[in-house]
Amino acid sequence: MHARMATVDGVRVLAFDTFGTVTDWFSGISAAVAATVPGVDAGEFAREWRRRYAPILAQVESGDLPWRRLDDLQTETLHAAAAMFRVDLDTDQTRRLVCAWRTIPGWPDAAPGLRRLKSGFIVAALSNATVALLVDMAKHNGFDWDVLGGSDLWRHYKPARETYCGLADLLEATPAEVMMVAAHQNDLDAARSFGLRTAFIERPMEWGVPSMQIPHSDENDLHARDLLELADQLGVP
Amino acid sequence: MHARMATVDGVRVLAFDTFGTVTDWFSGISAAVAATVPGVDAGEFAREWRRRYAPILAQVESGDLPWRRLDDLQTETLHAAAAMFRVDLDTDQTRRLVCAWRTIPGWPDAAPGLRRLKSGFIVAALSNATVALLVDMAKHNGFDWDVLGGSDLWRHYKPARETYCGLADLLEATPAEVMMVAAHQNDLDAARSFGLRTAFIERPMEWGVPSMQIPHSDENDLHARDLLELADQLGVP
Repeated sequence: MHARMATVDGVRVLAFDTFGTVTDWFSGISAAVAATVPGVDAGEFAREWRRRYAPILAQVESGDLPWRRLDDLQTETLHAAAAMFRVDLDTDQTRRLVCAWRTIPGWPDAAPGLRRLKSGFIVAALSNATVALLVDMAKHNGFDWDVLGGSDLWRHYKPARETYCGLADLLEATPAEVMMVAAHQNDLDAARSFGLRTAFIERPMEWGVPSMQIPHSDENDLHARDLLELADQLGVP
Repeated sequence: MHARMATVDGVRVLAFDTFGTVTDWFSGISAAVAATVPGVDAGEFAREWRRRYAPILAQVESGDLPWRRLDDLQTETLHAAAAMFRVDLDTDQTRRLVCAWRTIPGWPDAAPGLRRLKSGFIVAALSNATVALLVDMAKHNGFDWDVLGGSDLWRHYKPARETYCGLADLLEATPAEVMMVAAHQNDLDAARSFGLRTAFIERPMEWGVPSMQIPHSDENDLHARDLLELADQLGVP
């Protein structure tokens, strides 16, 4: 524990990934699919939709697609996922499903964990969602963020440098004063490459079925089961 | 009361001015001056500094000065104010005084008022301060903002259109869904000119001496003594 604390010396800001790390998108989206699209396997539909998330963001970052807000990209991937299930979604179904990302539930430890961590650190969302979506997510779940780092502030998507360094700049922090907290190793690898510290959070049920092995790196500064254990490791009562 | 409520129909966002409206800059800055600059009339010094605030922001908006963060502008006006008192401030004194704006106290009703209002509305800071300053102010005073609208998001200062409409856009709101809350009529006049609703808050002690008459307009949608009365008027328990 002492060795661990030493590596996080100087951290002032905790930057949290949101979908998957603080919220349980699978439960929220599969419930919304079940309520909105009759006759499909809601869990499989939710996973199919989510699998199309990272690739379309990468197309924006590569320049293949122009910048668009996450809701617009999610609308496009939703229709692509629906086509796989031979489903035609009308305007109202589309709106309801895209908006469902605003009210997905937090993991049970998220709201109390953020509240604890806020007493010792600046707690920031650093998300590919827009600020407006993050406001809705926070109000729905009681997340007491200090600051919302939405992708629309920088018009870039993680893992682009502009997001990690943009948040550090906004908070007048050096990259080494910011610790990225995520359940996804690629997010942490990118953050580390730009000088941030990293904390891995285990979310074995992120995809709705238990993952026996979650890929993670030994280079992460911290590794915790959830945000309450992270608070323990960071010495925040 | 019924007539009043009708005028604010559809408001989803309350956007708060910070210096003067939710915080008592006079008490905070005059105390910092007294502790940092021996032998001057701290209250007069604080007022002299503050009188130079709006004019230098206006010079940035007119294009006479390039965009700079509020701390940098406040450094310049601090030295100009100090010159009036025939005082030379060293680097440490300058840093302490400029940073004092980060920990000025909230008016007693501000933190509990914001907490009440947050249950019915999106509560946003809309300030000429930077996001980083607003984070420090919020943590120091227990302000539970939903979102921080700092001037560095838009690189513009109120009363510029980009700030009011920038916040509305960020929150996916129409201007009419946003109510500007301020103790300064010019801030509200600008907000109204861009389509926002307005609420005037009385802060007769803003300048450290009782103001018998605070200029305000009958065109404001609401007029309240403080944020608790504003919550009453908006029907938020």
